[in-house]
Amino acid sequence: MSAEMGHLAIVGLGPGAAEWITPEATHTLAAVSDLVGYAPYLARLPERSGQHRHASDNREELVRARLALELPAKGRHVAVLSGGDPGVCAMAAAVFEAIEAGEARWRELEVTVVPGLTAMQAAAARIGAPLGHDFCAISLSANLKPWALIEKRLRAASEADFVIALYNPASKARPDRIGNAFSCLRTGKAGTTPVIFARAIGRADERITITRLDRADPALADMATLVIIGSSETRVIDRPGSAPPFVYTPRSYGARP
Amino acid sequence: MSAEMGHLAIVGLGPGAAEWITPEATHTLAAVSDLVGYAPYLARLPERSGQHRHASDNREELVRARLALELPAKGRHVAVLSGGDPGVCAMAAAVFEAIEAGEARWRELEVTVVPGLTAMQAAAARIGAPLGHDFCAISLSANLKPWALIEKRLRAASEADFVIALYNPASKARPDRIGNAFSCLRTGKAGTTPVIFARAIGRADERITITRLDRADPALADMATLVIIGSSETRVIDRPGSAPPFVYTPRSYGARP
Repeated sequence: MSAEMGHLAIVGLGPGAAEWITPEATHTLAAVSDLVGYAPYLARLPERSGQHRHASDNREELVRARLALELPAKGRHVAVLSGGDPGVCAMAAAVFEAIEAGEARWRELEVTVVPGLTAMQAAAARIGAPLGHDFCAISLSANLKPWALIEKRLRAASEADFVIALYNPASKARPDRIGNAFSCLRTGKAGTTPVIFARAIGRADERITITRLDRADPALADMATLVIIGSSETRVIDRPGSAPPFVYTPRSYGARP
Repeated sequence: MSAEMGHLAIVGLGPGAAEWITPEATHTLAAVSDLVGYAPYLARLPERSGQHRHASDNREELVRARLALELPAKGRHVAVLSGGDPGVCAMAAAVFEAIEAGEARWRELEVTVVPGLTAMQAAAARIGAPLGHDFCAISLSANLKPWALIEKRLRAASEADFVIALYNPASKARPDRIGNAFSCLRTGKAGTTPVIFARAIGRADERITITRLDRADPALADMATLVIIGSSETRVIDRPGSAPPFVYTPRSYGARP
């Protein structure tokens, strides 16, 4: 690799709040020459003189990835922005897909993934510890995989009594996905299973709803929502007065504390 | 609740590196009157005059949780330390177990969970994006749940073709757990499935091994190791020279890029 070669960092901004951006992410973003990202993510960052910004549409993940891979050959030091953790239902997989399918010289690039908090962690922290024991994360987006596979994974997760975190529960084109997922899960999980809708956690319009599987309203999930469905062990601890309950999954199984 | 009541924060220190501790965690740790934690976690933090430290053994999670719950009634502001993310195979579940089983007044406490990066995110970031699509996290610790349940979850995760992250793959008392898990997974996953052993990520003695399921050596896993096993889609991108490969799981399923 030539001495003039730049490098590429894929940087996780976390779920929305500045207090959740790691020092590694902050330092990386301050040091690069170019920022590549979805416009609302770019808008979260301070303008820096001499730093170039390349904004794109959220649906253009592979376009963004390829742009980010072209720039280091010109000696640029590039950060691709990702919401949450780039490694969890986010930008990193798109960049590596582009590398695998793309030009041989892209494999020579220095690529760093800067991890960040992902939506399910922030959502869980707000209400207790629902992911406190074995869990699955499943994306309901059926753009790139068959819905039959999603149903198979939901059934397997239900039968083995995992806690389940659902990413991409709804989109404008397919608002019914989360309803279909609830129908699928109701055949395996009890109606009393706790369900959490966590919307825009860490942002000004944050909203959390705690309900149960037989009462879960699909309309509560939009594109900014993360949904958590408990295991048979997940518990709700009621609290006095107007305090919201704690929801958590114990480490033990089959033995009430 | 009386005006003199303190509060309790359960704080995630991340997987080991200071650059991964969130600003929220740093601010919380600086503001409390009492730190409660496993001694090596306490040793990572700067001494502060007037701040009390309560060190305990790592096996005494419930003892530590109860101590942390007693202190706020005396007006103390307490942080319980957790490695990684308190909400993922860590301290938060132990604290909520103690609250549920404990004194009624503990339910009145203000409890904050401060999320942190967890080991699987740090491990994944080091090598690419193996958790880039649907995955499970399973603890192999059988102290509090039957091994039969762990096997059931491993088989379900394998049959539904999840990527799998294994926490607590070995202990001094049970060094064979990870070997048993590999045996279980080999009945459902191909021998060529990528396996990653990630030890002490973010610490001075960090070590990563990338291998495949039919060659995975259980002896590579100790108490400080996180093991990731790919799905049928997880790919290894070889790179020129001595550069380590990238390992990632694409967003698409059943269609090579």
